[in-house]
Amino acid sequence: MSTAEETAGGEMQPWAEVTPDAARRLLVAAVEAFAERGYHATTTRDIAGRAGMSPAALYIHYKTKEELLHRISRIGHDKALDIVRGAAQGDGSAAERLTDAVRSFVRWHAGQHTTARVVQYELEALGPEARAEIVALRRQTDAAVRGIIADGVAAGDFDVPDVPGTTLAVLSLCIDVARWFNVDGPRTPDEVGALYADLVLRMVGAKQ
Amino acid sequence: MSTAEETAGGEMQPWAEVTPDAARRLLVAAVEAFAERGYHATTTRDIAGRAGMSPAALYIHYKTKEELLHRISRIGHDKALDIVRGAAQGDGSAAERLTDAVRSFVRWHAGQHTTARVVQYELEALGPEARAEIVALRRQTDAAVRGIIADGVAAGDFDVPDVPGTTLAVLSLCIDVARWFNVDGPRTPDEVGALYADLVLRMVGAKQ
Repeated sequence: MSTAEETAGGEMQPWAEVTPDAARRLLVAAVEAFAERGYHATTTRDIAGRAGMSPAALYIHYKTKEELLHRISRIGHDKALDIVRGAAQGDGSAAERLTDAVRSFVRWHAGQHTTARVVQYELEALGPEARAEIVALRRQTDAAVRGIIADGVAAGDFDVPDVPGTTLAVLSLCIDVARWFNVDGPRTPDEVGALYADLVLRMVGAKQ
Repeated sequence: MSTAEETAGGEMQPWAEVTPDAARRLLVAAVEAFAERGYHATTTRDIAGRAGMSPAALYIHYKTKEELLHRISRIGHDKALDIVRGAAQGDGSAAERLTDAVRSFVRWHAGQHTTARVVQYELEALGPEARAEIVALRRQTDAAVRGIIADGVAAGDFDVPDVPGTTLAVLSLCIDVARWFNVDGPRTPDEVGALYADLVLRMVGAKQ
């Protein structure tokens, strides 16, 4: 990701794939508005205004406010799945792949905390079809992490009495970084990622 | 807590201390409205309506919407601090006290997930004074958990390279239960508490 995609707040923008430029600006404006005031308190007029556009110009790109939320959620969840799947499909041992998954998942949730909060907290505002699609992506992310942990158990490298429960806890720990992470705080996203990878290896009882 | 304080959804109500009855009903209505639509999208009229009261009747008890949020947040954070402090001041070993803290903290975040979500996600809607008060309570909760972990390290029972970072992760893991916990899901609050206590003992490298 190039530095051109970094905002003043240090948050990386994952929206490079969204074209044309006006559609991307509206999406970024929607993320900011939803994060600040919540989905239900935000109007399409607010979003258009933040993007320096008219409501009519917004409707060229998005028919409804829900379509904006769906698009944001879809991109966020696709990215999270990519990250975890990339780590799961690596060549290393289960411990190496789990370390990679946790580090990159945490880096994403810290670096993109505004987007991640919207994606995680506004799930219930999606309509049934959009929600089903997102839930399916979440199951795949869960399955990728569970797969790494199960591999480690099968290889005798990990000691995990409850694989689904431990998978849930590992993902939950990483996701919650988006809630508390503060760009002005004492830890960088990389530092949190390194700390968390160590804690997760402990959670799965990885042989030292 | 008596079963009379349990709602149809199985969520326990921590509002017994709020009197008179009308003030308590308004608080419960506010929690539900904030959880459903977000703080900013909720009006005092919505809250009064949910409680079966007039806006004028609401103003007898709460001058502003922010006062309601502040009251909810204060009660929620007081309760969280009580739970963790109770465990920290127990007689057992650091491992026993940490187990107790995690189990009861998780039970609270699972059992009171609607309240906990409002308390955790709407923090930024509080004014500066109210927020400073809540942040002070959060620091005390953090200090109580950090104290148990530091005791375990001092006694040679725990192996923790980064005590503040591990404390943050333990609290974050427990708080995020409020986000994903589902009363219709496969695990009871007690079962999640037991799983998490085991995972947290692993995180601090507790001697088996």
